[in-house]
Amino acid sequence: MSLQTLIEDNRQAIGADPAQAAVTFTVSGELVGPTEVATKARGHQVTIDEPPVLGGADLGANPVEHALLALASCQAITYRFWAAQLGIDLDSVSVTAEGDLDVRGFFGFADGVRPGFTAVRLTVTPAGSEPAERYKQLADAVDAHCPVHDLFSHATPIERTLTV
Amino acid sequence: MSLQTLIEDNRQAIGADPAQAAVTFTVSGELVGPTEVATKARGHQVTIDEPPVLGGADLGANPVEHALLALASCQAITYRFWAAQLGIDLDSVSVTAEGDLDVRGFFGFADGVRPGFTAVRLTVTPAGSEPAERYKQLADAVDAHCPVHDLFSHATPIERTLTV
Repeated sequence: MSLQTLIEDNRQAIGADPAQAAVTFTVSGELVGPTEVATKARGHQVTIDEPPVLGGADLGANPVEHALLALASCQAITYRFWAAQLGIDLDSVSVTAEGDLDVRGFFGFADGVRPGFTAVRLTVTPAGSEPAERYKQLADAVDAHCPVHDLFSHATPIERTLTV
Repeated sequence: MSLQTLIEDNRQAIGADPAQAAVTFTVSGELVGPTEVATKARGHQVTIDEPPVLGGADLGANPVEHALLALASCQAITYRFWAAQLGIDLDSVSVTAEGDLDVRGFFGFADGVRPGFTAVRLTVTPAGSEPAERYKQLADAVDAHCPVHDLFSHATPIERTLTV
């Protein structure tokens, strides 16, 4: 099935029953080493760890790198979908994501330093047969509709339950 | 090296030279299939894809699941570090993270629907020999210092460069 058909099918199904647009994703993780976390999303197992400088064995990319991987991959896939939506030829797209962190926030060494990224830089390189202006239009549509770009750009409410 | 020692070494090194607290993480990704993205963080390669219902081959957890994996793993590791900081015994910790998404935002089917998570629920289960009140204190310290919790909870500026 082409992406155009998939998008059109979703448009009709959700138009007929908007409740079908609501999706919940669930993942789990368990600390299994000094900083090694065994995680799972549906059938997919992912090992997340810290490098030695942060007390781990570097068995996988660390949590903040996974957040950047989520952003880079979400951008790439949203380029694919919105190229299809807008009828823009897209042969390939590559993305790099950089995030600046001040570890004083994580360690609690300084008040007023946020523990998360203070700045993120995305570099996106789409390729295809269209004039540059069309890829600029695509990039703007992607940034307005990319779920992980939205997660980074806006606050999301977290409700935490502690079971001891 | 114990985490207490690692934390103390960092406190002294950063106290002597605050510039050492600044870290930049870099990742990259490339669309290599309909929705398959080959990503890399340092030496770690991660395959990210969508399930068939979103046009992919389900070769890996998808981008929003990776964002939740980042959150769950960051929580687990931050429990480890802050248990060490606060002198709280911690034998294990498991985390589940759920995120609600309204796909009308991603597809652009409805104005005013955000493309990212509208709500996230975290369930955290720490275990150890301390009274429940100590784990409540630990959870509050973790949520105040967990980098990915901060990323979800607050807006982060993204600067995007398009190279065509």
